[in-house]
Amino acid sequence: MKFISLLGATGSIGTQTLDVIRDHPDLFRLVAFSVGKNINLARKIIQEFNPELVSVELKDDYETLKNEFGHSIQFTYGQAGLIDVAVYKKSTLLVNAVLGSVGLLPTLQAIQAEKTVALANKETLVTAGHLVMELAKRYRVDVLPIDSEHSAIFQCLQGEQMSEIKRLIITASGGSFRDLTRDQLQNVTVKDALNHPNWSMGAKITIDSATMMNKGLEVIEAHWLFNLPYEHIDTVLHRESIIHSMVEFQDSSVKAQLGTPDMRIPIQYALCYPNRVALSNTKSLDLTEIGQLHFQKMDQERYVCLKLAYEAGKIGGSMPTVLNAANEAAVAAFLNEKISFLQIDQLIEKALERHNVIKHPDLESIKAIDSETREYVNSLI
Amino acid sequence: MKFISLLGATGSIGTQTLDVIRDHPDLFRLVAFSVGKNINLARKIIQEFNPELVSVELKDDYETLKNEFGHSIQFTYGQAGLIDVAVYKKSTLLVNAVLGSVGLLPTLQAIQAEKTVALANKETLVTAGHLVMELAKRYRVDVLPIDSEHSAIFQCLQGEQMSEIKRLIITASGGSFRDLTRDQLQNVTVKDALNHPNWSMGAKITIDSATMMNKGLEVIEAHWLFNLPYEHIDTVLHRESIIHSMVEFQDSSVKAQLGTPDMRIPIQYALCYPNRVALSNTKSLDLTEIGQLHFQKMDQERYVCLKLAYEAGKIGGSMPTVLNAANEAAVAAFLNEKISFLQIDQLIEKALERHNVIKHPDLESIKAIDSETREYVNSLI
Repeated sequence: MKFISLLGATGSIGTQTLDVIRDHPDLFRLVAFSVGKNINLARKIIQEFNPELVSVELKDDYETLKNEFGHSIQFTYGQAGLIDVAVYKKSTLLVNAVLGSVGLLPTLQAIQAEKTVALANKETLVTAGHLVMELAKRYRVDVLPIDSEHSAIFQCLQGEQMSEIKRLIITASGGSFRDLTRDQLQNVTVKDALNHPNWSMGAKITIDSATMMNKGLEVIEAHWLFNLPYEHIDTVLHRESIIHSMVEFQDSSVKAQLGTPDMRIPIQYALCYPNRVALSNTKSLDLTEIGQLHFQKMDQERYVCLKLAYEAGKIGGSMPTVLNAANEAAVAAFLNEKISFLQIDQLIEKALERHNVIKHPDLESIKAIDSETREYVNSLI
Repeated sequence: MKFISLLGATGSIGTQTLDVIRDHPDLFRLVAFSVGKNINLARKIIQEFNPELVSVELKDDYETLKNEFGHSIQFTYGQAGLIDVAVYKKSTLLVNAVLGSVGLLPTLQAIQAEKTVALANKETLVTAGHLVMELAKRYRVDVLPIDSEHSAIFQCLQGEQMSEIKRLIITASGGSFRDLTRDQLQNVTVKDALNHPNWSMGAKITIDSATMMNKGLEVIEAHWLFNLPYEHIDTVLHRESIIHSMVEFQDSSVKAQLGTPDMRIPIQYALCYPNRVALSNTKSLDLTEIGQLHFQKMDQERYVCLKLAYEAGKIGGSMPTVLNAANEAAVAAFLNEKISFLQIDQLIEKALERHNVIKHPDLESIKAIDSETREYVNSLI
């Protein structure tokens, strides 16, 4: 039995994690979870899963739920609440499915509390990969990927030796605007951008897919998870999102992981690792039904955010923190219809150009750079 | 250092095995090999690799080489010679790359002599899979596949548990006649059939690809290698031969192995297993250059040989021996232009229909059934 803490229970990954837990009551028990402001869904999760600890974002909601549920459940709130959930004594595995750099501190604390970490929060590794992986190594804790691409690579690497990898090949669907030229992106709307062709995901990651920043963040994430230089991490456009990613070995053999676009597969893999169990209500991949898989070279001039991510990653130090913070601020502004789609990469580029890199930033520096970058980007809007 | 015995050194797999050995003098040494009648190539191999034992098919050739090379090298010949090479004392790994059921006895003897067996001779497992795998289990010997499809599956299974497999998906290029209807096959010639679209292989296996018997033999081979019922072994048409085969696990995750059509990749994998080393003079797989991968359902009415193979495999016992022997006899007759292409499956079907299956045939029964079947097929021609 694995005892699960879940950060971000009401989001897309969060609810699908609950699906997996619900499917396997013999394997998993939800002992603690956090939500943001969706208190109604929190109530339903409490009633169904009967957890021991629940964290909410706001103090008012905390008071409300505490009054409703009494002493049978422990409540907590705010940033401290996320950490309470992450390090909850009874939990053995943390699923970190919150959005953005708010996921960093709970991850670090969970590692120090020797919890296995299943990571859907890619900003954690992007903004502070060196801190996370150093700590994971020191505490001998597994950091398991939930992103479909990294899960694919992780699955392909089972039974293989890291020293025998030639390169990782991360696939990208191309996002909502893959058939538009850069000129045609001038006047696209938020609604257009949120219409992803393959995956049903949250708003921020759907925009990141359209700008290709999502792939950029994944490249940086892969760099940290698999300890490989950027020169050995490639990306390829693959419209169908059937091959989730690949690994080429030094003998030129390539392994790939494929599947239907069902995020429960990588979520369940992380929860069950190193075992696999049956997944309910899913259909087998039928390649003959799909018929064709397409592959195209990635154009970094078309997808400026991907180029910026490689550059920030290669420079390293505090640069990826700036990339991530600037992107979060810019995407929020786009979703609030304050800037146009093409202004996203322009704002990120300005933030990167302005930044004087710090080689090995500690947590305090990262926090400071993160805030400073957001303020700067917002000042430009 | 691995000391290699190689059966069938002058064939397609044999010469590519020599390429791999040549490339890695630090890892491999050829200590013994066999050839058929190609004595000129045998001479060159002796000069280059300086082995200790060489077997040829004919006594005359044996005398000739013995006189030429004197006592520095040991010579042997005939069926006994194949076994001498297979069990050669100094060898640690046997590469069995002979064609047809003549490969069976040397494989069994090598297993009893506790040599690792790298198997390119698929007839060995088709005709006597139960004997081979029982013996391998008893002597705790690895039987490593060299066929690209089985190597693909074997690679995908590294780090996985056999009990968690849902099904194997073996890919098939479709062979030389994949774009012809069954009616159009009426008058195809040997020359047409030998023109395989993707792979450069020997004549027999190229015909087996065109009839799809090759895939049928591979299904039976996979049944024995991976100990799975036929209901869990699927085939799919994949024109490009880039995905060499796949495994679906019970969580619906699919793993695939991909590569350029270079047989040195699976050969080297078997020789190096469980490690991988760089492969020289090969280019990385570039999916963006290929652009598209195609998949189609396999039509067993179009490919009668595949249907016959599944049927023979499911009946089991001595039936696959009949399938294989009848196929060898019929393909030989086609290559000698004695029968038409469509007569191949008709002859095999007749042989299967006539046979009274023996449940657990021993080696003697297998040999008898093999000879009897060839005689019967030849009597029909």
